Amino acid sequence: MEQQDEQVGGLSHHGSSQDLGSPPISSFEPGESSQQEDGTVMRRSESYLPVPGEDKNLDGDFNGKTRNDESMPMKTLYASDGSLLHLPLGPYFSDGQRRVDYVLTYGIQKPSAIRRQSSKLSDNGYFHRLWRSLSSRSSRAPLQLKEDPEVAATEQQANYHEDDKRFKREEFEQNLQEMGLELEKDEGVYEVKQGSNLVEKIRLFIHKVTDPLHPKVGPKRPEDVKSLSLPFSKEKQHLFDLSDRDKFFDSKTRSSIVYEVLKRIRWTRPNYSLGITSLLANGVYTSAYPLHDGDIDGVTAEPNDRKLLFEEWASYSVFYKYQPIGLIRKYFGEKVGLYFAWLGVYTQMLIPAAIVGVIVFLYGCATVDDNIPSMEICDPRNNITMCPLCDSVCSYWKLETACGTARASHLFDNPATVFFSIFMALWAVLFMEHWKRRQMRLNYVWDLTDYGMEEEDHNRAEYELRVAEKTMRQDQGAAKDEKVKLTCTDRMPAYLTTVVMMSFMIFITFVIAFGVILYRISIKTALHLSTYPAARSNIRATVKTTAAIINVIVIIILDEIYASIARWLTTLEVPKTDKSFEERLIFKTFILKFVNAFTPIVYLAFFRGRLVGRPGKYLYVVGSYRMEECAHAGCLMELCIQLCITMLGKQLIQNNLFEIGIPKLKKLLRKRKSELTSKQEEELHKTLKRYEKDHVLGPFVGINPEYMEMIIQFGMVTLFVASFPLAPLFALLNNIIEIRLDAKKFVLELRRPIASKVKDIGIWYNLLRGLSKVAVIVNAFVIAFTSDFVPRLVYQYTYSPDGTMHGFVNHTLSYFNVSDFQNGTEPNPPNFNVKVCRYKDYREPPWSNTSYELSKEFWAILAVRLAFVIVFQNVVMLMSDFVDWLIPDIPKDISFQIHKEKLLMLDHFMKEEGRRRDNHNHDGYTSPSSARLLLHFH
Amino acid sequence: MEQQDEQVGGLSHHGSSQDLGSPPISSFEPGESSQQEDGTVMRRSESYLPVPGEDKNLDGDFNGKTRNDESMPMKTLYASDGSLLHLPLGPYFSDGQRRVDYVLTYGIQKPSAIRRQSSKLSDNGYFHRLWRSLSSRSSRAPLQLKEDPEVAATEQQANYHEDDKRFKREEFEQNLQEMGLELEKDEGVYEVKQGSNLVEKIRLFIHKVTDPLHPKVGPKRPEDVKSLSLPFSKEKQHLFDLSDRDKFFDSKTRSSIVYEVLKRIRWTRPNYSLGITSLLANGVYTSAYPLHDGDIDGVTAEPNDRKLLFEEWASYSVFYKYQPIGLIRKYFGEKVGLYFAWLGVYTQMLIPAAIVGVIVFLYGCATVDDNIPSMEICDPRNNITMCPLCDSVCSYWKLETACGTARASHLFDNPATVFFSIFMALWAVLFMEHWKRRQMRLNYVWDLTDYGMEEEDHNRAEYELRVAEKTMRQDQGAAKDEKVKLTCTDRMPAYLTTVVMMSFMIFITFVIAFGVILYRISIKTALHLSTYPAARSNIRATVKTTAAIINVIVIIILDEIYASIARWLTTLEVPKTDKSFEERLIFKTFILKFVNAFTPIVYLAFFRGRLVGRPGKYLYVVGSYRMEECAHAGCLMELCIQLCITMLGKQLIQNNLFEIGIPKLKKLLRKRKSELTSKQEEELHKTLKRYEKDHVLGPFVGINPEYMEMIIQFGMVTLFVASFPLAPLFALLNNIIEIRLDAKKFVLELRRPIASKVKDIGIWYNLLRGLSKVAVIVNAFVIAFTSDFVPRLVYQYTYSPDGTMHGFVNHTLSYFNVSDFQNGTEPNPPNFNVKVCRYKDYREPPWSNTSYELSKEFWAILAVRLAFVIVFQNVVMLMSDFVDWLIPDIPKDISFQIHKEKLLMLDHFMKEEGRRRDNHNHDGYTSPSSARLLLHFH
Repeated sequence: MEQQDEQVGGLSHHGSSQDLGSPPISSFEPGESSQQEDGTVMRRSESYLPVPGEDKNLDGDFNGKTRNDESMPMKTLYASDGSLLHLPLGPYFSDGQRRVDYVLTYGIQKPSAIRRQSSKLSDNGYFHRLWRSLSSRSSRAPLQLKEDPEVAATEQQANYHEDDKRFKREEFEQNLQEMGLELEKDEGVYEVKQGSNLVEKIRLFIHKVTDPLHPKVGPKRPEDVKSLSLPFSKEKQHLFDLSDRDKFFDSKTRSSIVYEVLKRIRWTRPNYSLGITSLLANGVYTSAYPLHDGDIDGVTAEPNDRKLLFEEWASYSVFYKYQPIGLIRKYFGEKVGLYFAWLGVYTQMLIPAAIVGVIVFLYGCATVDDNIPSMEICDPRNNITMCPLCDSVCSYWKLETACGTARASHLFDNPATVFFSIFMALWAVLFMEHWKRRQMRLNYVWDLTDYGMEEEDHNRAEYELRVAEKTMRQDQGAAKDEKVKLTCTDRMPAYLTTVVMMSFMIFITFVIAFGVILYRISIKTALHLSTYPAARSNIRATVKTTAAIINVIVIIILDEIYASIARWLTTLEVPKTDKSFEERLIFKTFILKFVNAFTPIVYLAFFRGRLVGRPGKYLYVVGSYRMEECAHAGCLMELCIQLCITMLGKQLIQNNLFEIGIPKLKKLLRKRKSELTSKQEEELHKTLKRYEKDHVLGPFVGINPEYMEMIIQFGMVTLFVASFPLAPLFALLNNIIEIRLDAKKFVLELRRPIASKVKDIGIWYNLLRGLSKVAVIVNAFVIAFTSDFVPRLVYQYTYSPDGTMHGFVNHTLSYFNVSDFQNGTEPNPPNFNVKVCRYKDYREPPWSNTSYELSKEFWAILAVRLAFVIVFQNVVMLMSDFVDWLIPDIPKDISFQIHKEKLLMLDHFMKEEGRRRDNHNHDGYTSPSSARLLLHFH
Repeated sequence: MEQQDEQVGGLSHHGSSQDLGSPPISSFEPGESSQQEDGTVMRRSESYLPVPGEDKNLDGDFNGKTRNDESMPMKTLYASDGSLLHLPLGPYFSDGQRRVDYVLTYGIQKPSAIRRQSSKLSDNGYFHRLWRSLSSRSSRAPLQLKEDPEVAATEQQANYHEDDKRFKREEFEQNLQEMGLELEKDEGVYEVKQGSNLVEKIRLFIHKVTDPLHPKVGPKRPEDVKSLSLPFSKEKQHLFDLSDRDKFFDSKTRSSIVYEVLKRIRWTRPNYSLGITSLLANGVYTSAYPLHDGDIDGVTAEPNDRKLLFEEWASYSVFYKYQPIGLIRKYFGEKVGLYFAWLGVYTQMLIPAAIVGVIVFLYGCATVDDNIPSMEICDPRNNITMCPLCDSVCSYWKLETACGTARASHLFDNPATVFFSIFMALWAVLFMEHWKRRQMRLNYVWDLTDYGMEEEDHNRAEYELRVAEKTMRQDQGAAKDEKVKLTCTDRMPAYLTTVVMMSFMIFITFVIAFGVILYRISIKTALHLSTYPAARSNIRATVKTTAAIINVIVIIILDEIYASIARWLTTLEVPKTDKSFEERLIFKTFILKFVNAFTPIVYLAFFRGRLVGRPGKYLYVVGSYRMEECAHAGCLMELCIQLCITMLGKQLIQNNLFEIGIPKLKKLLRKRKSELTSKQEEELHKTLKRYEKDHVLGPFVGINPEYMEMIIQFGMVTLFVASFPLAPLFALLNNIIEIRLDAKKFVLELRRPIASKVKDIGIWYNLLRGLSKVAVIVNAFVIAFTSDFVPRLVYQYTYSPDGTMHGFVNHTLSYFNVSDFQNGTEPNPPNFNVKVCRYKDYREPPWSNTSYELSKEFWAILAVRLAFVIVFQNVVMLMSDFVDWLIPDIPKDISFQIHKEKLLMLDHFMKEEGRRRDNHNHDGYTSPSSARLLLHFH
């Protein structure tokens, strides 16, 4: 009987849209069978066979134990159903044959309990049958509304609100049943041209070497074979290879077809129309999702793509392997596929950057003992007395106590850093170019080269609602023929709110950053007051580290808050389409998160130690807080610590807490509701149907948070790389974990996303490009102003008496006459041995006519610093543009293949058309709907 | 009979390629007539009528006077031909009906004379008949080789070389005759959607106001109507509106079709194959060109596009009108059309720039009397004694003598200039954006939106020759299956030559610029020696002006030399395709011309006056030449003069001499050869056939020199606009003339170019973009370093005692103790009254410990200058990027129209296919070649 069903379903692929509402059995029409008998289909494999993989494991060891707990609704549904034992556990309808491609859920209220029920949508063959599965699962008869438990429940409650939802649902589902659609791909095979002999040998060698790095996914198709493909259209189906009708569309495509139908079907009233998004938003349905392919482990685990992905991708044990991008795309769709491809390219590109970064760091380590400035600082013979670091409580200190910091600074502040900044600027450009080429290659492999904006984006439900409201308001006066749309004026309040809120939140970020500065100052003073020598000796390190940790925690908390505020603001603006919504949201989130992440870092890099004033005339904020100074060897060291802690902390906490911990917690909470022991849980799990298992999983919320995280990381890696050459290494280590973590999340923790087709990574590419442009100027400033690179250079080539760095430390320190301290700021108790103390600045000595004014050296060095910025920025920009120009955006072989494929497609077209026409001529029959639409889908 | 010919020709449009070689009369085949009878053509206007415009004026007053002068070959041809009087003078064959679309010429040697002969190629209807017109013009029989005067001539001479050429010609022409092709457009009409009422009213108003500015070309089609179009293909001809078969392709398209055939036809021997380009290069043919539409004036002037272009475009009297871009494109093709469209947009955009520039200049004029620094300079009470400007012969001078220069400087060096620089940077971005949009719009109107790189570029003849040589050399060893191509190694000698020659030529440019500097120094010294007071008073002005003029002349001469050297170098490199040749040539020419034009200007802007040294320690070059100083008020004035003279001089001389004078001269020379009086000439002119008239015109050498000229001008306008706000005005005035000048040249002076189809202006856009990027940084430096803007600002806000500019001049002048002059450099005779003289620099006074060293002010001001550069560059770049991002590249209405047009096209397709199929079904006939190729040409 089931076999019979399938046969009929498979044959009725020309069914008009009217017959889609009826159950599949009745959709055989005589008019269509003649179509079957023309030459087109005759050439295909005529005998239809059910796919072996789908019939397997249907009779797996199924645990039929029943329970009667009302608070676990899915269970309840089974309890009342005797035929349960024979139900398949894969993503099928109760007939075990027709796939469930998409699930809609809604809640119904019963006295003292909540019942959940699933409505499943299936497609079969080419078009889509809609099946509303009822609680009496064994009955496969058409809708039996009387027996619907929902109806019974609402009858008892007489709840108007629930009633309304139910009516909406019913009409919407009726509409769904009246719908059908057509789309997708065709296959034919040709050989990819081989390269020349040597190239081919090298290619083979590389292939052999990297073979263990490739994931083992499926029977390996020879790499040189690629299918010809063409957007599917019903009118052109004679062109396609329809031999395996059941697998012609993969599960991802089927889901997105169903989703497309769902989006088009509307629950309509005059002036009022709701699509699936609005129905979901209004709670008419609680969720809507497609199904995973199958289970990953356990007894019911038949071989499926999900399991393959789990084994070859979403596992830490395969961290060294390439990602199976093709399979990811096949399972999750192009958008997710492109994200992981991008993440892969980024991670791959981080490897050379990390290696060079480590070499630069090691160079710093190796040369730390040859570094004359730090030797001079550490030399106690110099016996330099420094001015106190805070008022009254701090005392004079000897420069040699800063020896450790000075030596550590050298690790990050040496000439190799300049080279590394330039290297990383070019690296960023190379990364972009590499990605563009990879994207082009994927576009080719995934047959997206001709994919344009074919489908017009549907308006968002909220937008249509607002338009409807506006229309009603305007109905009195305005002309009818003008199309109503939301103008800037309509959105003005929302825009104003956005601007105000964004400014306020940025202000909050600044205030918090400033608060951390105050914390640092006051803690430092407090620790200076402390009498424990251990505390005093570690003052600097303690303050730096705690401040950095506070910063990180604040950043992480604000990040979450800002994300929700950005979403709320975007909702206020009522964007027209989903795309517009996404872009506006990304834009806002990016600005907020970026400011949030980089405010403390920018402060450390460019402002710390510059707004200090000078001894005797310090700068005070908030009453009596004296602004903090840097350690002798520049602020670079502190910047470095901050970056290190931010990167590590953010990644560790966000990865572990937000990406692993919280989803686990949520899942746990969902499960806890069912009040089962873990053993019972496990038992139950085996009995759950696919869509019930997936319902427990977290909803898919889009790929953008993942991108955002990576973009902020990219910012850390490129923007301040001059101060922290190990950043690429940290990023690399994080990303290796991140890929598998995200993979696990997608495969295990989340419901399957609706596959969406995109050609590129969109706005993210522009953000990356913008960041790498900003990175050039930021790095120029870090090298010129934060590091001591320029002063050292100037000293060596102009001021040094012997052309070496000897005397550099003395040169950078100005003199201060301790008698010039303001009242109350001199160290207490006073040290009467000290007449003159030193401080780091270029100022005239006390014995000059213009004492304590900025000296000529200051201006000369400032001029050189600025000149360095100009030269660095323009040289690097020029080099970047040159690299950009040098590397073609489309790989040569791909552009050649695309051209060739077009010709082959034409050939295939002509052959098929010719064969078809010959057939027509033979039997004198001409199909009126043959090849007219050819240009449309091109 | 002629009517008969035409009819048959018109019907035989399905002729296979074999029948193209025979004269048109024989091309009627029965198999094709059945094709005519199917529904496709039936719907079209069946009755074929000769076009009225083409039969007119055939019997104009033709002067049949004969002459017997052998040195005037065209004349001779007529002299022997009695039927001359009845020949039409338009671009027709001797039957007066079939158009000549393309002309090939070659020379033949006769004893003591050179004979020229024309071979004409014609196409008619859809395909192309080749017609070799013989010297006995009255005979319209097929090839009569025996009577060919060439054969006769060569028989007499027995010249092997000429013989070889003749054989090549014959075979080539035979090949031509065996060829046919199919391409082009179709029309249908739809309405462009109207905007809302208000917008429409404004549009109409603007249209009314600007109406006199629009050229009157042809019967005005309603603007809202646009033809649907599609690349023509023979298989799809049923879709096209073929009602007027003779005008289906315009003359431009017909010529390019013929040219395409010419390029594909080859004269072949084993290992040796020559296309038309090689045949032209080898002198087998002397020239190849399509024909102009007709005469512009005189008795034979029937209404034609060329005449219309002359009247409404190529005339100074219509300088205020828009250009008839559509007609230009129709007549000359897309490439020329885009050039003039671009030139038009550029000129249009120059109007606001010129207005703002003039306002900035006027602001300078208005504020010159309020300018405190120049007042101080002019005030004799200050009585400042300046150090001498040259060694020994020059004396001390009073600062007030520089009053005039100082006041003049203010015109170009005032705060408004900074604003103008920013304005022009944004202007450049706006210009680019505007052009991108205009280009998109033209692409839409000209149906290029779907035009890709459909035709593969043919390899250049030289390249194939070199490949053939290489193949022969490799034949012994290498594997056969590898495709031979020129590698980098093959081209290495050429590349080396290029690098060496380019460096050498850039070096030459520098040497010449340096020579002019030396000239300036020595002339200045010489004039100082002169005893005439008149000479001495005008020294500066004289020297500046003469030097600038010399520079201009050198630039113009070198420009011509460099152009030919660049061409020679590119030929050496043997580029593969014409496109590659063009790009390489443009790249080289651009670098050379750019360096040539801007070396003196860059020297003046950034180096002059900076490499002077200081009194007592001047910098000397080439022995005893002391480097020149600037006048007191900065070098900006001199830069300004140089720019002014360069722009004016270059444009005047190049326009007048090269674009008008030399072509006229060449034409005159060609005519002088014929040794006729001007009256005889005129008489003769009336009797010349179209292709003979066109042969007298200059050959078309491509549009690139025109672009190059404009790009250099664009460089002048944007790069140094900070120093010369009148540059846009000058450019505007020049371009208004330039447009008409170029137009005249194209319409009157040159042979008609082969129409080439391009989508954009290609490499020129990148050059423009590059220039406008460089302009930002150059302007930043000009403002920061060349002008006194930053010192004035610094003085006012830090050094000035009262916050005003009073005392600024004194502040900028350093002191020099005259006793510190080096021996022999002090003024002679010495002035014993002067103990201390002043010079313009920031140095310590003689009484300082570090006398004559750079002062703190110098460094401070330098730092501010550099900071200004950084801020200016980044702010302007940010603003530019923002503007770029703000303006969408494709105008909204255009993208909407493109979408709509695609839908309409589909509609048309379906309708036509349906109608066609219905017809098939009615008469039971199915064309095997119907709609199979639909996707190919898309």
